[in-house]
Amino acid sequence: MLPYKSLIQVDRKSSVTLYIQVCNRFISLITNGTLRPADPLPSSRILAKLIGINRHTVRLAYDELISQGWAESIERKGIFVLSRLPELPKTKLSATEKDSTSKESFIWTNRFENALPGENFQKIGLAIDDGLPDVRLAPVDLLMREYRSISRKFYGKNFLKYGGSQGSEHLRLSIANYLSNSRGLTVSAENILITKGSQMGIYLAAQLLLNPGYNIVVGISNYGSADDAFRYAGANLTRVPVDENGMDVDSLEEVLHHKKIKAVYIIPHHHCPTTVTMSMERRLKLLDLAREYRFAIIEDDYDFDFHYDNKPYLPLASIDHNQNVIYIGSITKTFAPALRIGFLIGPKAFVRAASSLRQLIDRQGDTLLEEAFAVMFDNGEMERHFRKSLKIYKQRRNLFCQILKTDFSDKIEFKIPEGGLAIWSNFDDKIDLNKMSSDASKKGLFIGNGSFSRNETFVINALRMGFASLEEKEMVKALGILKKVLG
Amino acid sequence: MLPYKSLIQVDRKSSVTLYIQVCNRFISLITNGTLRPADPLPSSRILAKLIGINRHTVRLAYDELISQGWAESIERKGIFVLSRLPELPKTKLSATEKDSTSKESFIWTNRFENALPGENFQKIGLAIDDGLPDVRLAPVDLLMREYRSISRKFYGKNFLKYGGSQGSEHLRLSIANYLSNSRGLTVSAENILITKGSQMGIYLAAQLLLNPGYNIVVGISNYGSADDAFRYAGANLTRVPVDENGMDVDSLEEVLHHKKIKAVYIIPHHHCPTTVTMSMERRLKLLDLAREYRFAIIEDDYDFDFHYDNKPYLPLASIDHNQNVIYIGSITKTFAPALRIGFLIGPKAFVRAASSLRQLIDRQGDTLLEEAFAVMFDNGEMERHFRKSLKIYKQRRNLFCQILKTDFSDKIEFKIPEGGLAIWSNFDDKIDLNKMSSDASKKGLFIGNGSFSRNETFVINALRMGFASLEEKEMVKALGILKKVLG
Repeated sequence: MLPYKSLIQVDRKSSVTLYIQVCNRFISLITNGTLRPADPLPSSRILAKLIGINRHTVRLAYDELISQGWAESIERKGIFVLSRLPELPKTKLSATEKDSTSKESFIWTNRFENALPGENFQKIGLAIDDGLPDVRLAPVDLLMREYRSISRKFYGKNFLKYGGSQGSEHLRLSIANYLSNSRGLTVSAENILITKGSQMGIYLAAQLLLNPGYNIVVGISNYGSADDAFRYAGANLTRVPVDENGMDVDSLEEVLHHKKIKAVYIIPHHHCPTTVTMSMERRLKLLDLAREYRFAIIEDDYDFDFHYDNKPYLPLASIDHNQNVIYIGSITKTFAPALRIGFLIGPKAFVRAASSLRQLIDRQGDTLLEEAFAVMFDNGEMERHFRKSLKIYKQRRNLFCQILKTDFSDKIEFKIPEGGLAIWSNFDDKIDLNKMSSDASKKGLFIGNGSFSRNETFVINALRMGFASLEEKEMVKALGILKKVLG
Repeated sequence: MLPYKSLIQVDRKSSVTLYIQVCNRFISLITNGTLRPADPLPSSRILAKLIGINRHTVRLAYDELISQGWAESIERKGIFVLSRLPELPKTKLSATEKDSTSKESFIWTNRFENALPGENFQKIGLAIDDGLPDVRLAPVDLLMREYRSISRKFYGKNFLKYGGSQGSEHLRLSIANYLSNSRGLTVSAENILITKGSQMGIYLAAQLLLNPGYNIVVGISNYGSADDAFRYAGANLTRVPVDENGMDVDSLEEVLHHKKIKAVYIIPHHHCPTTVTMSMERRLKLLDLAREYRFAIIEDDYDFDFHYDNKPYLPLASIDHNQNVIYIGSITKTFAPALRIGFLIGPKAFVRAASSLRQLIDRQGDTLLEEAFAVMFDNGEMERHFRKSLKIYKQRRNLFCQILKTDFSDKIEFKIPEGGLAIWSNFDDKIDLNKMSSDASKKGLFIGNGSFSRNETFVINALRMGFASLEEKEMVKALGILKKVLG
């Protein structure tokens, strides 16, 4: 007889009933070849004694095995593994060894072979990130209050059901109203698709606009995850310079003379990574070019809400009378990264197509969260939060820049950004950012090495340094460590 | 002078400050061509009087216009629209008319031209849906309790930050434990990607496995949204019969003799739409074929938790020693459709690739919800909820079938399903399902016309009738209406 005492172990704390556990263990023994067709099973009395459970439980387990078609009862003989079961290959691989074989059994696209899943560097203690908000400021209590209040109402149960893939109509109306007041962008709820953060807006736009071999224009320096989404759609990236007034539209015009361009991707406020803002003159010229050459503008304005001095320029979408602009924004960044709500705005037919694609991807968003955000827009809580955090972030920007100026003037060149959550910091060429990053981490400070901002054409000894997620004391401490590291 | 009193109207209840509102209205007038370069603006005194606001507010608005580069102040003359502003095309299109032009300004793929965004038919009062859970049973209060408790803790703030694209490790561990106990599937957290419902698992698998022109095998009758995801990846669908024992693997074997197949998609429990369960014999043969012909099996087991009589068969993934199976499941369906949590399980390298693609799509899931679900798995609340709803659904299934038998025996043929939330109902050929659906809706009952279950090869006068979302009284009422409609 097999050593059942060690082969069949049950977990009494599990919420799965014992007999199902026993049944499942037997099935494992059958499928891994330990028990073979027509093998006898021990009598219920013996097994019960061996593994220390009730005999009745063993009988239930055997009934279960029989009803699932793994075993059969032969009168006056006992229970046997089903004799007409196909022979299963004997395997000694345990679950944890499953992946030790280097040859995979089926093949998938290798496009992601070297990509790493998103790092979670905010969980590490002290960090100079690349421009993340301070989640400690998010009014989570208010959000929870809305959650509770909505889910307790009778109609609130509706928000637990399947909803439309375009997102909550209530939230779309609230956002339309907010965009009209804050940035002169007048659209109806039908022009809006609620997304999971701005990344989904970029992905959807890329999938709908770009086919393999199409050309899209992006900045020489650009947000890497947008580049990746365009490449994934099969497009070729054509890079155009970005200077202190944003993307150089004259260079773009030259490209347009000899190349068919499907779309242009811009980050007009606080370009990522360099934090520059696109001038109004260039915005208007870009719109003219789009009309003339019939390309789409993907305007990623994720950072609109963070502007400290002058009010921000209007989005291109607000001035666009020719429907060339797909406008992408985010509330995620303003509230809390893990609560993923953003929006994509465009002509109605485009938004309908994007909603249909979204339905294939994840069907719909989180209706309850969307509804709670809508209520917080309506009662003004959302904008109160925006204003409050803006004030705090401005103070943090000022302090951060002041320390950089006082303590790092020989090592770091930077301009005070008009908005956004990071300083674009150019390091002295003698400083090795990889070494700096690894030295700092030994002293308890996480800081990147600038690799996320670089690409095949943009190689520069610079780094985005986020100031928004650090309280004053933390900032002083973090920059103190950095100063020591840089010697 | 322009009729500013009607052109510039402010909203005193808005949370946007008045001067920004005034500034934005002026920008609209400039960008739509009403105000042209070098046009004078009214003096602050006059405008203040005309539109009934404080003169200081007007001055702030003008300062803002100037700082944004729309206007200039000329000494002793007043404020003017910037003279070197490019001429903007005059437009009379209001925002709501924007889409009236039939010719779009840029072109996107037309694959979704006729697709409709997801309908939200559960919001209508009385409905026989196609197999949705009853959200009234979801323990939302418990979920809210966990939300509150997590977000109040100091470390809880971490769940508001960016997280990994593979999903909460805590939840992956809880799910690994649950799968091991409930269905003998032993995997580690690294084999699991947390998705937004099973649809995202299907989409990711389709994108990674299928290139244009590849062949995937699906059932002659199949879940339409899966077909769509495979077609979107560019694959050709090869359809194989599905009978009362699930997909006919002998037919599949014949296909394999003459066609290169990349993947096979199956719904082993309660096939959608026909609710049949795949026999163990066929499961084992399918695994054999996968090993021999090196294709991937996409096992969509969204319905595993709903099984009323015998315990369900083990998933293919639990018996698969050759890593041919990508296993997709959902908690969404068991808890509440709007709280979108599902999982994709496969070899570690495949799961890493899927996580990287997921990062391009929406970066990550809702970390707070994932954490709350993990706690509910750990403290047993999740399985208590599963067991409780299973008991209720079984009663509802029995009552529904009993009424169908008593009152519809001459019109509807069906088998009592072993699990799932719907009855696959074959209607008498004389009954026109479109007419039935529209007649019923006039009497206050929503019921589909079966179109979602049909495809180019599967045309049948049948319908999935969901019983789970109806309480006893509602069920009696709904079927009463249906009986009248069918005469």
